[in-house]
Amino acid sequence: MKTIMAIIRIDKMNETKEALIEAEIDSFMATGRVFGRGKGKYDAKVLEGVKEGVPEAIELMGPEPRLRPQRLLTIIVNDNFVKPCIDAIMKANRTDTPGDGKIFVLPLEEAYRVRTGESGTIVV
Amino acid sequence: MKTIMAIIRIDKMNETKEALIEAEIDSFMATGRVFGRGKGKYDAKVLEGVKEGVPEAIELMGPEPRLRPQRLLTIIVNDNFVKPCIDAIMKANRTDTPGDGKIFVLPLEEAYRVRTGESGTIVV
Amino acid sequence: MKTIMAIIRIDKMNETKEALIEAEIDSFMATGRVFGRGKGKYDAKVLEGVKEGVPEAIELMGPEPRLRPQRLLTIIVNDNFVKPCIDAIMKANRTDTPGDGKIFVLPLEEAYRVRTGESGTIVV
Repeated sequence: MKTIMAIIRIDKMNETKEALIEAEIDSFMATGRVFGRGKGKYDAKVLEGVKEGVPEAIELMGPEPRLRPQRLLTIIVNDNFVKPCIDAIMKANRTDTPGDGKIFVLPLEEAYRVRTGESGTIVV
Repeated sequence: MKTIMAIIRIDKMNETKEALIEAEIDSFMATGRVFGRGKGKYDAKVLEGVKEGVPEAIELMGPEPRLRPQRLLTIIVNDNFVKPCIDAIMKANRTDTPGDGKIFVLPLEEAYRVRTGESGTIVV
Repeated sequence: MKTIMAIIRIDKMNETKEALIEAEIDSFMATGRVFGRGKGKYDAKVLEGVKEGVPEAIELMGPEPRLRPQRLLTIIVNDNFVKPCIDAIMKANRTDTPGDGKIFVLPLEEAYRVRTGESGTIVV
């Protein structure tokens, strides 16, 4: 079992849900909102300028380093569903422009269904 | 050390906190809200019908695949507290009806307390 | 690659972002709000008193066990950035008073950039 965390655009949530369900992955969890930023958006020097109140720096990036609102989708899958899950998220979210998001795979050791007390791969 | 993530009903939060504290697990973190769905709630065909605007499908599941509001509880525990923690969450949340939630156990490599700089099992 | 989760004070968010960017860690994700509590804040007996409606217990800790609003910052880093990342968070958040927060390091197996389909250490 694996934990898949995907950071996606807010307006891609429905499309992503549909892609996951079509890939027969029908158990997942979304946060209301997260605030994220991709790599290399701002220069440390510019950031320093914002801190020091340099008008050009503030004009460039606003009064504080901005974080983009995004959604975090967490999906627990059995090992054989890792690739289909990543493919589904890619398909639904790829627009070839910055901000398309990222997908992370973390290990998962155990899973339990509270209602029945069952554990293991049957649960996810 | 382990990371325990539990997805529970919103109205079970207080009961769960109490069960954890009674089990001597008194450090945890809850998100305001997550939106989740269990396995197998909706049929892919019905979902397709919703997308295509088929009235019977929409009547069955609403205008979009719904996600239930739930809470996510994240608890970091030392290894000897994994079982007591799972038992406490099970006890507080089991109503034998769908939606009772799930519990996931992820590995944790390191933990630090910011105030003191301490790390390791002493922290959790 | 590692997943670093830091639970910090709400009013330390900007300072932490700046410390991370100065440490050349410029990709991270913050939740709006989480509710957490550190270890050992409340006594199980007092909690029991709250449940039973004992006025002294309620006066001591309010009508329900309180959770402090905090922020959760999740940062994915390559292995050589784990220490700089922890140091940056420590520096920005350490006030030597309770509530300074905690940092957790979890394993990460894979990372993908949706826009390009790239995977691996190049992504984070």
